[in-house]
Amino acid sequence: MVASTDQLIAGVHFEQATPIDRIARKAIARSLSDLAAMAASPTAALVAAALPPSHPPPFADDLFDAMSRWADHWDCPIVGGDIAATPGPLALTVTVLGQPATPRGPVLRSQARPGDTVYVTGCLGGSFPSGRHLTFEPRLAEARWLADSLGDRLGAMIDLSDGLGLDAQRLAAASGVGIELDANRLPLHDDVASWQRGLGDGEDYELCLTASGELPSRCPATGTPITEVGRTIEGVGCVILLPDGTRRDAARFGFVHRDPPGDSADNPTNNPP
Amino acid sequence: MVASTDQLIAGVHFEQATPIDRIARKAIARSLSDLAAMAASPTAALVAAALPPSHPPPFADDLFDAMSRWADHWDCPIVGGDIAATPGPLALTVTVLGQPATPRGPVLRSQARPGDTVYVTGCLGGSFPSGRHLTFEPRLAEARWLADSLGDRLGAMIDLSDGLGLDAQRLAAASGVGIELDANRLPLHDDVASWQRGLGDGEDYELCLTASGELPSRCPATGTPITEVGRTIEGVGCVILLPDGTRRDAARFGFVHRDPPGDSADNPTNNPP
Repeated sequence: MVASTDQLIAGVHFEQATPIDRIARKAIARSLSDLAAMAASPTAALVAAALPPSHPPPFADDLFDAMSRWADHWDCPIVGGDIAATPGPLALTVTVLGQPATPRGPVLRSQARPGDTVYVTGCLGGSFPSGRHLTFEPRLAEARWLADSLGDRLGAMIDLSDGLGLDAQRLAAASGVGIELDANRLPLHDDVASWQRGLGDGEDYELCLTASGELPSRCPATGTPITEVGRTIEGVGCVILLPDGTRRDAARFGFVHRDPPGDSADNPTNNPP
Repeated sequence: MVASTDQLIAGVHFEQATPIDRIARKAIARSLSDLAAMAASPTAALVAAALPPSHPPPFADDLFDAMSRWADHWDCPIVGGDIAATPGPLALTVTVLGQPATPRGPVLRSQARPGDTVYVTGCLGGSFPSGRHLTFEPRLAEARWLADSLGDRLGAMIDLSDGLGLDAQRLAAASGVGIELDANRLPLHDDVASWQRGLGDGEDYELCLTASGELPSRCPATGTPITEVGRTIEGVGCVILLPDGTRRDAARFGFVHRDPPGDSADNPTNNPP
């Protein structure tokens, strides 16, 4: 069994005016994206809600009903939880339990090998301004197809919550490899104009994975694009190769929850509120 | 496997000035008390922390170190988690996974039968003013002894977070039975002067259980007192029998997270801040 927990806080992960159904959907989908990153199948969820005085019990009932519907939609029924009053903003903590793929077992972010190819599912960038951060589909089916069809050819995997640059760097660090990304290969959404935003916007909830050998350009199970974006190498860190041949530290692009002093000017894509 | 999740919020479940080690201890112990209520043995924990700007990363490191020490102390290692920034108060959500007792299986609050005797472990009342709410011992060992030695003689069980009156009423409602408690049998801490406070103070984290047949007056495994406080009957609700023979609704004594309008005057023991 695998388990993951994730928080959704009003004013941090969604705007206060977000409709209840969209809050509920994102709370469940975000945690399921963590299961997808391990190529696990959902078993059950537990939800802890901290409710401010501005959100009285009828709101809580509607919110839990909506979370329950989305959890059932993704075969991950809510089996327990906790409700508390808070003087702070609405906060939802969703813990999900799942079963790893057989025979592959849990896919970890530490399983990349030098010489793997780096891929991402779907398209990147612009998730917050477009509202996609409220409507993304957790890549559970794609992950299971990858684990089942690639087996040990599948290396490491991570879901993209803080931007490809930063999350790929985390995967590289956990695996003890380096990663080179190609700026001109990043699959961008139509409303995303630059590789910088594809690299750093965050909240994509796509999968970044490494694998040996070729992959099809789309997941046969769902039609979701699978795009080669780089490679793992002997070394450390994650760099992005620009069309003009320069190399930049990819991890500098991405959502940092607290910028170190003096660092924010280097991080133009720290969009989530 | 069983799972439970619980929240600990600054200003609600502990005072802002509480030392880090005490906050950490209570966060872990509260969730383990939920496992004890099911007579389950801890397997692992996941911790989600929402950190306000007033608690910068060094605080978080100390807090997680302390939680990790307490989790290890109770054989429930922290295996995952999440950290987010919040504009609200410090909040910790601890999810615990455990294994039910064999052969008894999970003990539920719905398993009381009419004619059972109602017991509580330890002593009741005064947890918040005395500080015991920060130092209680989750009754894991007592619960396992009860499940292992009583088997099917053990009926339902619940841990006492909101006061015996209210929590026993929840157990009664889940089991479809009524409960009669005897005011003069409640085991009170030395600093607790009235049965009302023993019934309603909350935050005891003792176990309330039902069983058929006699129990020893102390748990042989730990020496913790086990006190007969009442009985289950055919019916609904939970009443407290006073020495003068009157009967009162026990559920009116206990911590209600949000009082219905006009109700607070009837609930003199709503102490937690």
